Amino acid sequence: MYGRAMPVLDHGDPGDGPTLAPPLEPIAEPARPSAAEEARTLVAATNVATLASLTTAGDPWASMVTYGLLDGSPVLCVSHMAEHGRNLAADPRASLSIGTAEQPSDPLASARITLAGVMERPEGDRLDAARAAHLAGVPAASSYIDFSDFSLWVLRVARVRWVGGYGRMDSATAEDYAAADPDPVRPNAAEAVTHLNDDHADALLNMARALGGYSDATTAICTEADRYGLDLRVQTPRGMAYTRVGYAERIEEAGELRMATVELARRSALLLAEPTGS
Amino acid sequence: MYGRAMPVLDHGDPGDGPTLAPPLEPIAEPARPSAAEEARTLVAATNVATLASLTTAGDPWASMVTYGLLDGSPVLCVSHMAEHGRNLAADPRASLSIGTAEQPSDPLASARITLAGVMERPEGDRLDAARAAHLAGVPAASSYIDFSDFSLWVLRVARVRWVGGYGRMDSATAEDYAAADPDPVRPNAAEAVTHLNDDHADALLNMARALGGYSDATTAICTEADRYGLDLRVQTPRGMAYTRVGYAERIEEAGELRMATVELARRSALLLAEPTGS
Repeated sequence: MYGRAMPVLDHGDPGDGPTLAPPLEPIAEPARPSAAEEARTLVAATNVATLASLTTAGDPWASMVTYGLLDGSPVLCVSHMAEHGRNLAADPRASLSIGTAEQPSDPLASARITLAGVMERPEGDRLDAARAAHLAGVPAASSYIDFSDFSLWVLRVARVRWVGGYGRMDSATAEDYAAADPDPVRPNAAEAVTHLNDDHADALLNMARALGGYSDATTAICTEADRYGLDLRVQTPRGMAYTRVGYAERIEEAGELRMATVELARRSALLLAEPTGS
Repeated sequence: MYGRAMPVLDHGDPGDGPTLAPPLEPIAEPARPSAAEEARTLVAATNVATLASLTTAGDPWASMVTYGLLDGSPVLCVSHMAEHGRNLAADPRASLSIGTAEQPSDPLASARITLAGVMERPEGDRLDAARAAHLAGVPAASSYIDFSDFSLWVLRVARVRWVGGYGRMDSATAEDYAAADPDPVRPNAAEAVTHLNDDHADALLNMARALGGYSDATTAICTEADRYGLDLRVQTPRGMAYTRVGYAERIEEAGELRMATVELARRSALLLAEPTGS
C-alpha cells in the first residue's frame, strides 16, 4: 500500500535530481487528498483564472477572467464586446487554468489545475443562482454585472487535470470533481505547520519514525497539512526523503487539526515505547 | 489632441459609475506608452503565463507555463509528456495570457495582455539563444531543460491585445510589438510615486493646474509614472477626474525620472506665475 500516493515523475531519468532514501517500513496511513479534492480546494481559494477560448478561426485565445463558484462550477461574467465574450458566444468550448494565489520563486513547484468543458448560459432559477455566485466571488462585479453587454456563463466541467508541483499530477472525472469537497484544513494550515515545526519537532520526528516508514529519521519537518494528514520531509543517515503521516480520522472542520495532531503525537510515542517497536 | 490617449469605455452606459469632470484647458502633453510598449513592459516583468493550446479534438486547453524572453518573444520549455506539450506538437497555434505579478483586490483593474501566434521549434543558433533566454528567465529550468522529453518553443507573435484595467485597452500589431521597448521607469516607479505624493503635493497640484488641463484642481495625486509622464487623479469643485502631465522629453533610463519631474515642477510654477496664465 505504501507508495500508492507517492510522487510519480512524469518523465524519464531525473538526471542530477536528488536521490531519495526509500522507507524502511510501510507507511501506516498514506491517504492524501484526491486530484478532485485538490482541484476543489484550489478553485475555492481564489477568484482569478485564465480562460482558453476559441476565436472564430479556431485559434486558442488566453485571457484573464474572474469567477465565482456555483457548487464547483466557475461562473464567469464577460462582455460580448470583449474578445473572449465573442468567442464563447460563437463556440462555448472552454477551459480554465487556476493557480495558487501566491507567486513562488519557482512557479512550476506550485499547484495548479485545468478545468475543461463547455460554457453554458444559465436561465431561470439557475441564472439567479449564478448571478449570486459570481457576486459572492467577485464583489467588484456589482458595478457592471447588469450592463446589457455582460453575460453570465457557467462552466460545465467535463475534465479536470491537477498538477501539484514537480512530478505530482493526476486527472479527475467530472463526477469525482462534482462529488469532492474543498479541503477545510489546507487554506489555513500555514500557521499550524509553523507551530508544529517551531514547538513540536520531537513529536514530528516520532511520527516519522513510528508511522512514516523512517525508523532511522534524525529530523522531520512538516511541509504541509491537509484533512488527511501531514507531509513530512525527513533526514536519515541514508539521505533525505519525503513521507506522510495520516490522522486516525479524516478532519471535517479546520478546528479539528489540533486534536488530530495531538493524537498522532501520542500514538507515535506509544508505538516507539513498545519493546518490539512497530 | 487632448483626449486622444484617454480611457475609452468598451461598453455602453457606465450606469452608476462616477461622472468625471472634463478638463478646462487642453492637456499639454498627454503622450503615454502605446499598447505595444505596455505589452513589452508587462511581458518583461514576470516569467509566468497561461498558455492556451489546442487538444487533438480542437478544444481550447489552458495551462500554466514559465517563460524566458528572446527579444520580445516568449520562450517555453515544455515536456511532450504534458498535455500542452502534446498539443503544441500536434498544432502549434497558441496564445499566452500574462498579468501583473501582484494580485490586486480587484483583478479586473490590473493590466494584462494576450500574445497570440504560432509556436516554433528553434534550430541551430536560434536554439542556443532560446535555451539561454529560457534559463535567464527561469533559472530553475536548469534541472530539467536537458531532459529528452522537454522541448523549447518560441512564440512567433502575430497579434497583441493589451488591457490596462477598466476601459483601457488596445491592440498592437506584431511589428509594433517587435519594435517597442519595455518601459525603463514603470517597473520601479512605486517608490518615486510615493515620494512625489508624500513630499511634493504642491508641485503635483501645480502640474495639474498648469499642464494637466485642470486649472481649478484643489488636489492632485500621482497614481503611476512611466517613461512619458505622470498619471494624476485630481479633485476639483466640479468633481474628480484623471489627467496626465508629460515630461519635456521621453525618459531613456530609470535614473532620469527625478530630473524629469523637477523640470515639470519648475515649468508648472513658471506658467502659473505668468500674469496671463497658460
